Amino acid sequence: MLLSGLKKYQVDLSAIVSMADDGGSTGVLRDELGVLPPGDVRQCLVALSDSSEILRKLLSYRFEEGGLKGHNFGNLFLSTLEKISGSFEIGVEEAIKILNVKGKIIPVTNDDARIFLKLKNGNILKGEDNINKSEIIQKDGFEKLYFEPAVKASQKAIQHILEADLILIGPGGFYTSILPNLLAFGISEAINNSKAIVIYNCNLTNKKGQTDGFSLDDYAKEVNAYMGKDRLDFVIYNSKKPDEKLIEKYQSQQQQLVEFDPGENKNRTYKVISADVLSDEISEYGSADVIASTRALIRHDSNKLAKAIFLVSEMENYKNIIKDII
Amino acid sequence: MLLSGLKKYQVDLSAIVSMADDGGSTGVLRDELGVLPPGDVRQCLVALSDSSEILRKLLSYRFEEGGLKGHNFGNLFLSTLEKISGSFEIGVEEAIKILNVKGKIIPVTNDDARIFLKLKNGNILKGEDNINKSEIIQKDGFEKLYFEPAVKASQKAIQHILEADLILIGPGGFYTSILPNLLAFGISEAINNSKAIVIYNCNLTNKKGQTDGFSLDDYAKEVNAYMGKDRLDFVIYNSKKPDEKLIEKYQSQQQQLVEFDPGENKNRTYKVISADVLSDEISEYGSADVIASTRALIRHDSNKLAKAIFLVSEMENYKNIIKDII
Repeated sequence: MLLSGLKKYQVDLSAIVSMADDGGSTGVLRDELGVLPPGDVRQCLVALSDSSEILRKLLSYRFEEGGLKGHNFGNLFLSTLEKISGSFEIGVEEAIKILNVKGKIIPVTNDDARIFLKLKNGNILKGEDNINKSEIIQKDGFEKLYFEPAVKASQKAIQHILEADLILIGPGGFYTSILPNLLAFGISEAINNSKAIVIYNCNLTNKKGQTDGFSLDDYAKEVNAYMGKDRLDFVIYNSKKPDEKLIEKYQSQQQQLVEFDPGENKNRTYKVISADVLSDEISEYGSADVIASTRALIRHDSNKLAKAIFLVSEMENYKNIIKDII
Repeated sequence: MLLSGLKKYQVDLSAIVSMADDGGSTGVLRDELGVLPPGDVRQCLVALSDSSEILRKLLSYRFEEGGLKGHNFGNLFLSTLEKISGSFEIGVEEAIKILNVKGKIIPVTNDDARIFLKLKNGNILKGEDNINKSEIIQKDGFEKLYFEPAVKASQKAIQHILEADLILIGPGGFYTSILPNLLAFGISEAINNSKAIVIYNCNLTNKKGQTDGFSLDDYAKEVNAYMGKDRLDFVIYNSKKPDEKLIEKYQSQQQQLVEFDPGENKNRTYKVISADVLSDEISEYGSADVIASTRALIRHDSNKLAKAIFLVSEMENYKNIIKDII
């Protein structure tokens, strides 16, 4: 979502993509073909592709019948390129060429590993899919997240972070996408050592059983903790209230909006940018954006979010002139 | 094979593709997804694509493990495009755009039908795959070939044949590719009514149990019979003898070279072009040509065959000057 908004600007985009996915079509391909997980990279390809609408539909197509049922065509495309080229990283580079993609897509790691989540009661959730579906993390208490075996970040990912002017974190699954990327050995260190402005795009809603009751500051605090340093410069908060009916629908599923209380934290090490970054589309599947429409009803507007980010980075470039941001 | 040779010339190529395939990956897709057979179209795409070597490999890749085993990536690509666009013909047009293909690829029919072969003893072989694998056609006697239900040629195929300057038939499976294409209602009539030069590129070897003992003239006679008119202008015969070891290998599998005896037929209605159109590559899988190398050891050389065809058509254009071809 974020990439499809950002690509309209004259910027040099590099997406560092989580490689923790092990559910659905991706999980079957990992198990059966021994490939690395293509799902998240595929979504970035669709977002960044300048190609025709039909090519975007092609990459997002899910088979509904027979032995192929549940498989996603774009995943098969990436896994086949990995098989042919002998490396997931090279396969992704080939896909970028074939699809005329604007920007870089860099798997956070070339290692094949699963993500685990340990609960305070000692139980362990194995794999991204199980973590994603779990509704007991809040109840049993989150202790820690780790890869097994531990994974090291790819050199390419580290290099691009070190050279970045702007580093964007989120939105995305907190325990399944945001934190795992920070856990790949070398990523947090690179963020800490880079001269970039770091912006965290906080999720709009809390995930049931996982981050219930998390405030904007709770998310930001945890992200800083996983980076080992109060590295966030800005956190973007959605100030626009969604449609009342949508809020009720979410609440009936025990999902709440992420709240921000300016007075909650007197010692913030980051600035909170309060902005309308909400999608106004309320039809359930009416969106032309293939990815976004399958995701959530209360969701970001890719153009508004990109604009907010662009303005923040511009303001930061003039920070000697503009003395404060409220 | 033929298309990859011809595409190097400044010609306007249209491949009219057989739609009788029902074996392997293609057969599973027909049965499970209800799509039209992609296999033959896919091979034409690979041959005509100007894209990178990796894209050609991608389209020819066959999965070897798990639930995808046996499926060909290019077939999945075409079937997905058919699903998205709602029509095989439009799906093929989209594939042509995506892959930057030089030339047109036209399914001979948009109807979904199976090919049947009736034997003289009354038995019937159902479907292309069964016909292709059969070794009893010669023994039990060939009676006739038919589609059920009968299929009509696509308007696009008919139009392109009517407007052609040169019509090339073969090489290819005689009962599974050459004759089925002539059976689609409207094709033979279009060939007969067109002003084009018609060249038949005869196969190099006889298929065990199917066309054993067929001479060049036997093939040509049958093709003319299926067109309902002695329409062939030229038949190309390979004059170069393959490596002795290869001949022995074929003979040990009861496969013989197609022979040509100038004295066999005193009333030929076509000219026989005797030319070296044989591939000199003898390594089994060493060819860079992905398709050809999986096919046969005694096979055509795409460049030599294209050159022979080009020369014949040029000579024909000057037939008022050159009075005879020996």
